[in-house]
Amino acid sequence: MGRTHSNAFLKVNHFFDAQHEPVLACICARNAERAESFAAAWGYGATETDWRRMVESRQIDLIDIASPNDTHAEIAIAAAKAGKMVLCEKPLGRNASESEAMVQAVESAGVANMVWYNYRRVPAVTLAKQLIDEGRLGRVFHYRAKFLQDWTISSDLPQGGEGLWRLDVHVAGSGVTGDLLAHAIDTAIWLNGPLDEVTAVTETFIKSRMHKLTGRMEPVGIDDASAFLARFQNGSLATFEATRFARGHKAQYVFEINGEHASIAWDLHDLHRLGYFDHRDEGRLRGWRSIHVSDGDHPYMKHWWVPGVQIGYEHTFVHQVADFLTALEQGGKASPDFREGLLTDYVTDAVLQSASSRNWVKVHGQNR
Amino acid sequence: MGRTHSNAFLKVNHFFDAQHEPVLACICARNAERAESFAAAWGYGATETDWRRMVESRQIDLIDIASPNDTHAEIAIAAAKAGKMVLCEKPLGRNASESEAMVQAVESAGVANMVWYNYRRVPAVTLAKQLIDEGRLGRVFHYRAKFLQDWTISSDLPQGGEGLWRLDVHVAGSGVTGDLLAHAIDTAIWLNGPLDEVTAVTETFIKSRMHKLTGRMEPVGIDDASAFLARFQNGSLATFEATRFARGHKAQYVFEINGEHASIAWDLHDLHRLGYFDHRDEGRLRGWRSIHVSDGDHPYMKHWWVPGVQIGYEHTFVHQVADFLTALEQGGKASPDFREGLLTDYVTDAVLQSASSRNWVKVHGQNR
Amino acid sequence: MGRTHSNAFLKVNHFFDAQHEPVLACICARNAERAESFAAAWGYGATETDWRRMVESRQIDLIDIASPNDTHAEIAIAAAKAGKMVLCEKPLGRNASESEAMVQAVESAGVANMVWYNYRRVPAVTLAKQLIDEGRLGRVFHYRAKFLQDWTISSDLPQGGEGLWRLDVHVAGSGVTGDLLAHAIDTAIWLNGPLDEVTAVTETFIKSRMHKLTGRMEPVGIDDASAFLARFQNGSLATFEATRFARGHKAQYVFEINGEHASIAWDLHDLHRLGYFDHRDEGRLRGWRSIHVSDGDHPYMKHWWVPGVQIGYEHTFVHQVADFLTALEQGGKASPDFREGLLTDYVTDAVLQSASSRNWVKVHGQNR
Amino acid sequence: MGRTHSNAFLKVNHFFDAQHEPVLACICARNAERAESFAAAWGYGATETDWRRMVESRQIDLIDIASPNDTHAEIAIAAAKAGKMVLCEKPLGRNASESEAMVQAVESAGVANMVWYNYRRVPAVTLAKQLIDEGRLGRVFHYRAKFLQDWTISSDLPQGGEGLWRLDVHVAGSGVTGDLLAHAIDTAIWLNGPLDEVTAVTETFIKSRMHKLTGRMEPVGIDDASAFLARFQNGSLATFEATRFARGHKAQYVFEINGEHASIAWDLHDLHRLGYFDHRDEGRLRGWRSIHVSDGDHPYMKHWWVPGVQIGYEHTFVHQVADFLTALEQGGKASPDFREGLLTDYVTDAVLQSASSRNWVKVHGQNR
Repeated sequence: MGRTHSNAFLKVNHFFDAQHEPVLACICARNAERAESFAAAWGYGATETDWRRMVESRQIDLIDIASPNDTHAEIAIAAAKAGKMVLCEKPLGRNASESEAMVQAVESAGVANMVWYNYRRVPAVTLAKQLIDEGRLGRVFHYRAKFLQDWTISSDLPQGGEGLWRLDVHVAGSGVTGDLLAHAIDTAIWLNGPLDEVTAVTETFIKSRMHKLTGRMEPVGIDDASAFLARFQNGSLATFEATRFARGHKAQYVFEINGEHASIAWDLHDLHRLGYFDHRDEGRLRGWRSIHVSDGDHPYMKHWWVPGVQIGYEHTFVHQVADFLTALEQGGKASPDFREGLLTDYVTDAVLQSASSRNWVKVHGQNR
Repeated sequence: MGRTHSNAFLKVNHFFDAQHEPVLACICARNAERAESFAAAWGYGATETDWRRMVESRQIDLIDIASPNDTHAEIAIAAAKAGKMVLCEKPLGRNASESEAMVQAVESAGVANMVWYNYRRVPAVTLAKQLIDEGRLGRVFHYRAKFLQDWTISSDLPQGGEGLWRLDVHVAGSGVTGDLLAHAIDTAIWLNGPLDEVTAVTETFIKSRMHKLTGRMEPVGIDDASAFLARFQNGSLATFEATRFARGHKAQYVFEINGEHASIAWDLHDLHRLGYFDHRDEGRLRGWRSIHVSDGDHPYMKHWWVPGVQIGYEHTFVHQVADFLTALEQGGKASPDFREGLLTDYVTDAVLQSASSRNWVKVHGQNR
Repeated sequence: MGRTHSNAFLKVNHFFDAQHEPVLACICARNAERAESFAAAWGYGATETDWRRMVESRQIDLIDIASPNDTHAEIAIAAAKAGKMVLCEKPLGRNASESEAMVQAVESAGVANMVWYNYRRVPAVTLAKQLIDEGRLGRVFHYRAKFLQDWTISSDLPQGGEGLWRLDVHVAGSGVTGDLLAHAIDTAIWLNGPLDEVTAVTETFIKSRMHKLTGRMEPVGIDDASAFLARFQNGSLATFEATRFARGHKAQYVFEINGEHASIAWDLHDLHRLGYFDHRDEGRLRGWRSIHVSDGDHPYMKHWWVPGVQIGYEHTFVHQVADFLTALEQGGKASPDFREGLLTDYVTDAVLQSASSRNWVKVHGQNR
Repeated sequence: MGRTHSNAFLKVNHFFDAQHEPVLACICARNAERAESFAAAWGYGATETDWRRMVESRQIDLIDIASPNDTHAEIAIAAAKAGKMVLCEKPLGRNASESEAMVQAVESAGVANMVWYNYRRVPAVTLAKQLIDEGRLGRVFHYRAKFLQDWTISSDLPQGGEGLWRLDVHVAGSGVTGDLLAHAIDTAIWLNGPLDEVTAVTETFIKSRMHKLTGRMEPVGIDDASAFLARFQNGSLATFEATRFARGHKAQYVFEINGEHASIAWDLHDLHRLGYFDHRDEGRLRGWRSIHVSDGDHPYMKHWWVPGVQIGYEHTFVHQVADFLTALEQGGKASPDFREGLLTDYVTDAVLQSASSRNWVKVHGQNR
């Protein structure tokens, strides 16, 4: 994620008007050589191998956390205490308890903060949000989301270590629940409001994997797949599913919302399109529209190219930085801040608890 | 459904070789005038308003039940006792208890019997079955199915009576669970084996509707939407959902199966296509294939037209009759028979029970 | 084609109200055994091996011609002279000259007549016609059509004889120009009016093939591929293409029309859908709609099943018979009659002439 | 195009290994204020309003031409004479005659040169090139390409001046032929070899438009639409079409190639996908594959993000710069160079000549 973030910081001022211009002051990595190499490639002004020194530095205004999940809380809390602005990759902590401490820290310190739930900033997803806020759907009956991948099917894939910490429960906190469902839940809360209760099932298809750090076969502690049913506070029903065992899907995050008057569908594999069905269209001519979200009047798109040519994944990070700078300059918060990120963690905690207890579980902290 | 069945009986011998030729001996309807009209349109030899007289007739070898669900058990049991072959629209009974009595009746009488789960006979779905039976998927990880409609969203739609008995719980037994999920469950068991346990949620969005028979607003007893998570006996995870409140979907029955080596996807809205992804394809060239199931070597298709031109919904019923005749002539049973149909009812019972109890529920009777 | 026609005659009264009911009086084939077999399968009352006796029969009111192209003119003219109604498979004759004689014959005799350009009766195509007639497109700028197949790529495929007469220029008259482009041209004239002039290219990729009748390699006289540019009388530009050498396409007949306000697209491979783009939709929400043409208010569809389930290829023939019966009973002609069919032959003649002369060629007889 | 080029120069070293690092030394624009503003946004070291001073500057090694077409030849020739490397937006000149002079200039000067036909560098298009070069298609029968837009339909749109010079024939040289068809032709020659001869038609639907520079209604000299049929030297047939009057298409550049064994299809509106049909796949399972070109073994993609997330339009320019730098460092030319770009201009000249003369026209200079 270091590359997506660095790219976003470097590009934002070329495409968006902002008074602030991010400066890549320092990159931190445990391995000094890799830090040097990354700094050279991206033009960072300095390198560190101990994040604490970055947090203490007077040259640095903002700490951006893109390290494994088990480091998020400690770094974020220290950064907040040092009065830095804090950006953090999702999910916030490995569980809601860690995340609560992070929220507490940034709010006590009064520092700007944001979680990188980047898919909100896909123009098609932001367009969906606009349509919902305009009331076009009417009463919502259904929300369904899936995030399907297939990269861990091989039992030869080890867990832990470089590039594979997502399979190590101690580092990641959970498997697809915190990694993939978290994205789906963040979008869902943003679009359809708080979730009330869930019933869930998880599965670990490969029970043990070689651990790259211990060199031994170790039990796998993460969930390979996770699915849940839910009710939203607005009365709509939901089905959510995430897995890394869905052959044929590299990163198929899809959601669909069915309202009284209209429905919306989106797919990360074609992120520049939005599906839209409006029952108020003339009867004979009703059909799902495939909106090519590349016009100047589509969210964020006037900043890019000409109608008909698409942007991609990395631009969502640029948009998030642009919105963060706008909030800094015009007041207001850049959403999702840590408190909003925590709402997602309450849901993933409830999902894991339900999968374990085999009961419906009420989601905490969702009143708003 | 009387039209789809009549059409199937009349067409089957034009397209399939069979020694038997169905004869439309008699049509029964409560309303004599409508029976006459239907008989004239379709060439039935006689009409009846009391099904008991059909069951007693020596001229009749087979009773085909396409009446509302609350009549299935009584007619089927009487027909079996009278030694008739019995075909029955799905679901068998309004619940597994009724269905068990139906199974008992046909098995005691030793009469040929079949349930009209017609979607098995969509050529693309039968092709999926072939691929699975050939072991192409390897270990199965995921099964997901949805059956989405949108025709009952209006609260002005009454319940009960002509054409609307599916909204009257006393007649239908349940809502979308028995009507739509039953199709999805039958296909799932056929393709992926028995289901082990479920956790479910149902919802009735419109709580009361005018009843056409009483002329009064009456509480709605059916489920407008129903979703469940499940484990199959083979260890795969499942998500199922059905609703009549998904704006933009007229009859979108879709399923997808993810295996170790390959995945399959199908959509009733384009029933002549099968999605297929094979991980064993050369890496750079892997992709979902859209198979236009219209060639002579696709299931059933050599009996129809030329490659590239599609058949539709009604043909699934023709195929089912053709297979029934083949079983009659060559021995063997025409699947699904009542006993197989009962398996689906055990699942729908478990779904409704889970939705009510808010617990995981074990599915009965699935050992095989 | 005998099966599609027989099926249409048998089914029409089950689904459409008509006073007349077609009777399958007699089937004619050169081979007596095959005639008997076909008659048995479809319930024909009698068989013939000489079409002349059918034409002379007093028992017969209508002659339906589904034999190879080189027989169309002779049979149709004789049938007309005998006062029979005449239906003829497309194209009418092997060239416009033959077709003119056929038109002359039916018009002199004053008998009802129709050409089986069945794709007009695909509900989605008829819906396109309605939208155009309602003026929704505004001024039309572009028309493009392709009819792509891939069944003759193998050089081992022989020409001539049973099932392969379409490769024998003496029987077929031409290759894809008369076989596939003719369909595309008929639809185009119906939807967008007369064509004014064309420039064309044809190609015969396989120069000689074994002839099944002579048993020798013979030069191939047909065009394997044919493409042309054209101007319509309404000022719009056109591109047309047909081939039997487009790997991956079994019968992909597609057309698209671009108007000032709206565009329409259709594909035979998914014949139950219509693509529609309306620039008058709200800007941010413009997109191509995929209309699932299966509702009761779509052309012909109230006669079939429930919304969301599709019909197929064979139904286009049923619709054509239904419209023919309606015209018989209510007056008016069933379109396209022979005179309309002749318009298409003028275009295909011009295409072949242009491909040969390498000049733009004016289309004859298109004033209307 | 200044933004796409600047972005490419700035990004290339973050994602691709190269010894050279482009330096944005100077930006030239006729309007000093706009040059300043652009320089500030993108970090250019200096500004100019007269391109001659850039050409003369010793600080500058490479001149990149992104100005209107009527300036290409003069700038490129001067830059080459000054010994600069020259990159030029497509098309090279307004006609082949101008382009020949440009080729002459860079070849005489022996300077590196390249034309920005960026669509070759879409990973899916490069993948198509690989498949063809590997011989997977076998003998090619058909090539078809369309480039459809709809942004000039309104007759209120003026011609000439800022942002609208593409409608002024004196500046642009031609309409869609040089603007859109040129892209389609460049790709076609790259993938399928030289074109032999063409027959074409063009149309100007709006005959006069307000000219922004004169303030008067002026005749429109460009072609609004252009289509041609062609034969390639390899014997395959082609249809090409471009228009700015195809309602519903913002930039739908599509091509399809049909070979003996396999076919390929691509669409700029979903540029991250490649359609592929292989007849050698097992019969029952043949189907068009939709390849999501986002894996590390797809062209260029290992330099970007993770599988399943797409890149977009701007990345094609980054790839072109990366390949240009590679050629500089490793020897070889970066394709397409000016000489290759000239081949496209010979075709567009032939198209315009054929549209005018209404004859087939042989394409010049295609021997290779």
